[in-house]
Amino acid sequence: MSTQTKFLLDESKLPRRWYNIAADLPVPLAPPLHPGTLQPLGPDDLAPLFPMELILQEVSTEREIEIPEPIREVFRLWRPSPLVRAHRLEKALGTPAKIYYKYEGVSPAGSHKPNTAIPQAWYNAQAGIRKLTTETGAGQWGSSLAFAGALFGIDVTVFQVRVSYDQKPYRRALMETYGAKCIASPSNLTASGRAILEKDPNHPGSLGIAISEAVEVAATNDDTKYSLGSVLNHVLMHQSIIGLEAMLQFEMAGDDPDVIIGCTGGGSNFAGLAFPFIGQQLRGGRKRRIVAVEPSACPSLTRGKFAYDFGDTAHLTPLTKMHTLGSTFTPPGFHAGGLRYHGMAPMVSHLKELGLIEATAYPQTACFEAGVLFARSEGIVPAPEANHAVKSAIVEALRCKAEGRSEVIVFNLSGHGHFDMSAYSSYFGGQLVDQGYDEKELAMALAGLPSVPA
Amino acid sequence: MSTQTKFLLDESKLPRRWYNIAADLPVPLAPPLHPGTLQPLGPDDLAPLFPMELILQEVSTEREIEIPEPIREVFRLWRPSPLVRAHRLEKALGTPAKIYYKYEGVSPAGSHKPNTAIPQAWYNAQAGIRKLTTETGAGQWGSSLAFAGALFGIDVTVFQVRVSYDQKPYRRALMETYGAKCIASPSNLTASGRAILEKDPNHPGSLGIAISEAVEVAATNDDTKYSLGSVLNHVLMHQSIIGLEAMLQFEMAGDDPDVIIGCTGGGSNFAGLAFPFIGQQLRGGRKRRIVAVEPSACPSLTRGKFAYDFGDTAHLTPLTKMHTLGSTFTPPGFHAGGLRYHGMAPMVSHLKELGLIEATAYPQTACFEAGVLFARSEGIVPAPEANHAVKSAIVEALRCKAEGRSEVIVFNLSGHGHFDMSAYSSYFGGQLVDQGYDEKELAMALAGLPSVPA
Repeated sequence: MSTQTKFLLDESKLPRRWYNIAADLPVPLAPPLHPGTLQPLGPDDLAPLFPMELILQEVSTEREIEIPEPIREVFRLWRPSPLVRAHRLEKALGTPAKIYYKYEGVSPAGSHKPNTAIPQAWYNAQAGIRKLTTETGAGQWGSSLAFAGALFGIDVTVFQVRVSYDQKPYRRALMETYGAKCIASPSNLTASGRAILEKDPNHPGSLGIAISEAVEVAATNDDTKYSLGSVLNHVLMHQSIIGLEAMLQFEMAGDDPDVIIGCTGGGSNFAGLAFPFIGQQLRGGRKRRIVAVEPSACPSLTRGKFAYDFGDTAHLTPLTKMHTLGSTFTPPGFHAGGLRYHGMAPMVSHLKELGLIEATAYPQTACFEAGVLFARSEGIVPAPEANHAVKSAIVEALRCKAEGRSEVIVFNLSGHGHFDMSAYSSYFGGQLVDQGYDEKELAMALAGLPSVPA
Repeated sequence: MSTQTKFLLDESKLPRRWYNIAADLPVPLAPPLHPGTLQPLGPDDLAPLFPMELILQEVSTEREIEIPEPIREVFRLWRPSPLVRAHRLEKALGTPAKIYYKYEGVSPAGSHKPNTAIPQAWYNAQAGIRKLTTETGAGQWGSSLAFAGALFGIDVTVFQVRVSYDQKPYRRALMETYGAKCIASPSNLTASGRAILEKDPNHPGSLGIAISEAVEVAATNDDTKYSLGSVLNHVLMHQSIIGLEAMLQFEMAGDDPDVIIGCTGGGSNFAGLAFPFIGQQLRGGRKRRIVAVEPSACPSLTRGKFAYDFGDTAHLTPLTKMHTLGSTFTPPGFHAGGLRYHGMAPMVSHLKELGLIEATAYPQTACFEAGVLFARSEGIVPAPEANHAVKSAIVEALRCKAEGRSEVIVFNLSGHGHFDMSAYSSYFGGQLVDQGYDEKELAMALAGLPSVPA
C-alpha cells in the first residue's frame, strides 16, 4: 500500500492555460440581460465595470486561454497547491474509499480566492486602472483582492457586510495589512447604501447590498472598476487551475476520482475543481459523479428557481439566468458567510439543468461536526464553508463503507478556518443552531422575481 | 536569471534522522542541576516529567537520531516545508542580496511547533502515557501539542497565560477544536497558582508561572507527564529537521547561505534552522554568519547574564546555565508572546558564549513595519515573533545594498500571523508602542539569581 500523503507538482508544471468550459457546452448559456432594456448585453455594456480583457474572457468560447506570465509568477508564491491523501480520515471512518483533498488554504489569504484576484488585478493594472471596488462577506474575497492590489499598485476599497465587519475584525485587519480600505456596508458613501440606512439605520447588511454599493462606486467613477469574487464566467475559469493541477496530481497518484465534491456559495471553488473533469466527459471522456454542496439555510441549487434574476439588491447588475432564492431573500445568520448568497453562478446552474452535476445541502452543525473530525485526523481546521465539502466527502465515504466499495473521492478544501475560530467556539459552546430559512420570505422573494419576456 | 520561487522537496526526501549538535560541540554543555541539591541531574531525576526516550535524547551526544516512521508519517501532512526565494521583497528593497525564507507556517497549527509536539506526543504514547500537561503564551505551542495529542490519543491540558487566554480566544478555540483542555494561568488547580492568586487575584500570568503549574500537575500525578515547547536540548534537536531540509533545498537552488537568521524566544525555531549549518562548520566546513534576533523588551541573549537559573517562577524546574534576565523578571506586554521568556535555551546560550552565533535585538514597531512590507510583497502575513527575523533579514539585505554585495540570506519564517491580526490592528491604529523593560526590575531580577557553587 502506498503511504504517500502529498502529491506536489513542481512549479514548472504550473498550468499555462485556463480551461473554459463554455467551449464544450452541449447547449449554450442563456445570455445576460441589460437591467434596463432586458435585451442581451453586449461587451460595451460591461465596460464601465470591467476592463475589456476580462469582458472578452466572460463571453469567450475558446477552450483554453493563456495565463500571462506575470500572473503565473505570483501564483508560484503558493501554487501548484497540494493534493493530499487523507489516510488518517479514511482510517477514522473505517472506509475502503480513498479520500483526497485539494488544499487551497496554502495561499497567503488562506483560500482559493487569490486564483482570480491576482488575474483580475493584473488585467485591470494592464488597462491602466488604479482603483478597484468590491464587496465581501466574511472577508475571504476582500482580503484576496487586497493582497492582489498590493502586488500591482491598485487601491482597493472593500464594502464589507456590516455584521461581518463588526464581528470579524481580524479579516478586516488582514485587508488593512495589505493596504486596502474596508467600509462597513450599508454605508453613507453610496445612494444604494443611504437608501437602505434611511429605512433601517442598523441594517446588518448583505452581500447583495454590498455588491450594489461597490458596483455603484465603479459605475459612477471613471477611474474606478469593479471586481467580483465568484459567479461570473471569467471568475470560474480562473479557478479552473485547481482542477487542471488536480488532474496532473491524480496521474502522479495513479488514481482517478469517481466522486468530485465542492461547496457552493457563488460556485467558484466548486467550478474550479470540477469543470476540467466535466469538460473531459463532455469531450467523450469518463462520466464521474460531481457533487455541489450548499448550506440548508441558503439552498439556491436545491430549492431555488432557475430563472433570470439580479445579482444584487439594488438591481444595478445585469440579469442572469441562474438558480436563485430571489434577490430580496435574506438567509438566516450562519457561519459560512461565503455561502450566504441568494444566487448561483449561471454556469453552475446551467450544468445542473443539463444533469451534469448533482446538488445536496447540509445544516451547519453537521458540517462543523465533520470539520472537527477532519481537524482531529488530518490537522487542518477547515473554513466553515469548506466544512460542507468535508461533510459530503464523509457521507460518500461512509456510503462506500456500507456498500463495500473502494471509490476514489476528492473534495476541494477551499480554505482554512484560522479566521473563523469564533464559529468553532460557538459550536463547542452549544450556541450554534440549525436555523432554517423563512419559507414565507422565500416564497415572497421568488414571487418577486423579475418577469422577462421569453 | 532563475525565476524559480519555491524549492519543494518530495516527501521521499523527508529527513530520516534528526541532527544533534551536542555531538559536535568543542566544549560540552554545563550540566543541569537539581533544584534542591544543586548537584548535576541524572536521567532518573527527570523521570517524573518525561518518558525515558526523551530523557535519553536530552543527554545524548549521538550525532544523528533516527526519526521513527509513525512520526514521519504525520510530518508528511505538511513537510518538507517550502524554501522560498523572496524575489518580490528583494525588488522592493532594491538589494543585490538573494533573500530566502524557510516557511514553517504551512503546518496545521501554523508554526514550527508541531515539529517537536508530534515526536513528544508519540514518545509519550509509546511509554503508555495518556495525559500531558504544558504551558502556552500566545498559544502556538499549546495548539501544536493539542494537535499532536489528538493524533495519538493523549489528553492534553494547557495552562495558558491569563492575559493571552482573555485576549486571544481564537487560539484557545483552536486547542479545543483539537480536543485539548485550556486553563487560564495562574489557576486554582495548583499550589503554585494558588500562591500567586492569593497575593494578586487579578495576576495576568506569565510563562514562568504557567510552566510551574504544568510541571506541578505532572510531578504530582503518576499518570501525567509534562511537555515543553522550546529551550530543552531534545526540543531543539527535533527542530533540526528545518535546517536539514533547507540544506537539501539550497542544493536544488544552487545557492549557499552566507547569513542565517532566526528569531529567539526560547530558541527552538532559530536552532532548528541554524544548528545543522553550525554543525557543518564545527566539522570543518564553511563558516557562516548566524544571527539570533530577539525583542528589545525581553533581551535575554543581548542583555541577560550567562548563569545558572530556574526555568520557572516557582523554582520547580532544574537549574540550567543560560542567558537569563532572572526568573522573576516580567517583560513588558508586547505582541510577540512567544518571545516573552526570561531565559534562553542553554544550547543557544552556549553557542553564543563560544562565539559561534551573533545576537541582535529590535523593538516591536520596527518589526511590524518589516512584517507589513513583507506581506505587501510576498503575500504571507508573518506572526509577530517571525517579524523579528524578517526585520533582521531586511537590515542585512540593505547592508548588502549599501556595500554592493550579493550575499545569500535565509531566515526562518516560523509561523503565519492569522491568529495575531489584533496586533496588526493595534499597529495600524497607532496603539502599539515600544515599551522598554524596567532597568531596576532587571537589576533586581539579576541580583536574585540563585548562587551556585563553582
